[in-house]
Amino acid sequence: MPRFKLHIEFDGSRYHGLQRQDGDIPTVEGELTAAFEKLTGHAPEAFAMCGRTDKGVHARNLIVHIDGDSSLPAFKIKGGLNAHLPNDIAVLAVEIVEPDTFHARFSAYERSYEYLLLNRKVASPLWHNRAALERQPLDVALMKKAAAKLVGEHDFSAFRSSECQAKSPITTLHELTITQNGDMLHFTLRGTKFLHNMVRILVGTLVDIGKGKLDIDTIDALLHTPARTAAGATMPACGLYFTGALYPAYTCHEKA
Amino acid sequence: MPRFKLHIEFDGSRYHGLQRQDGDIPTVEGELTAAFEKLTGHAPEAFAMCGRTDKGVHARNLIVHIDGDSSLPAFKIKGGLNAHLPNDIAVLAVEIVEPDTFHARFSAYERSYEYLLLNRKVASPLWHNRAALERQPLDVALMKKAAAKLVGEHDFSAFRSSECQAKSPITTLHELTITQNGDMLHFTLRGTKFLHNMVRILVGTLVDIGKGKLDIDTIDALLHTPARTAAGATMPACGLYFTGALYPAYTCHEKA
Repeated sequence: MPRFKLHIEFDGSRYHGLQRQDGDIPTVEGELTAAFEKLTGHAPEAFAMCGRTDKGVHARNLIVHIDGDSSLPAFKIKGGLNAHLPNDIAVLAVEIVEPDTFHARFSAYERSYEYLLLNRKVASPLWHNRAALERQPLDVALMKKAAAKLVGEHDFSAFRSSECQAKSPITTLHELTITQNGDMLHFTLRGTKFLHNMVRILVGTLVDIGKGKLDIDTIDALLHTPARTAAGATMPACGLYFTGALYPAYTCHEKA
Repeated sequence: MPRFKLHIEFDGSRYHGLQRQDGDIPTVEGELTAAFEKLTGHAPEAFAMCGRTDKGVHARNLIVHIDGDSSLPAFKIKGGLNAHLPNDIAVLAVEIVEPDTFHARFSAYERSYEYLLLNRKVASPLWHNRAALERQPLDVALMKKAAAKLVGEHDFSAFRSSECQAKSPITTLHELTITQNGDMLHFTLRGTKFLHNMVRILVGTLVDIGKGKLDIDTIDALLHTPARTAAGATMPACGLYFTGALYPAYTCHEKA
């Protein structure tokens, strides 16, 4: 049975997370599997994603795979899924891959995210549900210094939600950079894996440092003696975007 | 009676243009005047805007003025209007100006717009209602050459809708530049005034040149012997953003 690797973009405003849930709650997984079934006449045998997310989180490029009973070529899967999906989910690319060589979740060795934070007094109509808002002025230079301290392999227990089910709180952050474009702050994060709410708590901690509410030395303390209550708040979901995942070489039979 | 100069941002998706209309049709003018009346207890005596627009057009920075019976300071007008406005309209700044020295429409000597065009195969959920889509590949270098030909004082009759009520079709385009950021094309336009649908028809003509559907020499012909039917199509409203207006020096009593 073929495995279809999909690159997905979505506006998460309307979705209660990625994973299928009971009842009529709309989820990205639910929409994708329903579209696959409409297109091929068969429900997918398996579905996996490079990462999980919460209500309201967006994706510019999320990687998923679907195992399903279909002999359609890649370009027909892409066009057909897009024809059956709602406006707020799109399939950007499809590859037919060798299942032994690729798994959307287990093969990924790096995930990347972006967090958008508008730093101004007045809420923005054009960024409503697409970026978080911080009305207080921020010391961005100090935030950049604090961000640099977080990069590397650490116990990130202080930066995960109490609901996190990951076996180990130890992971490696490859990048945490902040760029400023007018009154918009772009946080770029890359790491081997991310704990539950980790990006949102990391950004919240940096924002508290930028406001002068937390000292920059708190970062060192939190990495050495993790205490969730001492870190910053969990930032809103609407500013968070999945931006990609990296995989070791795999066998791709077809691409569209 | 004080004159309040307002800088407005809005998501135009839900609005049937800027100007107040009969019945219950939502407009940006309708929302602003209603918010002013709720805040001050008085309907505005006068309302003017730097430019008019159609259904679905957005604004990052549109300039309007309201003459109204209120002795509130500028910061209370700003905060109070934002408290009464819906999520998709925001007042970014308020100035109390001397009416003899400033008129939002008649004093403006330059208006600016941005047009966003996504050039890729698949529609984007994250740019839905926020950018137009062109699926065919475009020769952007050729479009830039064509854009340069349009700058200057010209008879833009070929680039206005049949409903345009402007007395003269002659106006000066100060800038028409195209920048590319990944698969997004940003068109930046500045001019003394713009005819009805002029930005959308200019961009439509450049897109037809980029697709090879129109020859670049068509531009010269259209500027010399205007014929609306020979120009490109009117692009969708959702890609168009007001971005500002310039005024000669005026007397500002207070700012927030």
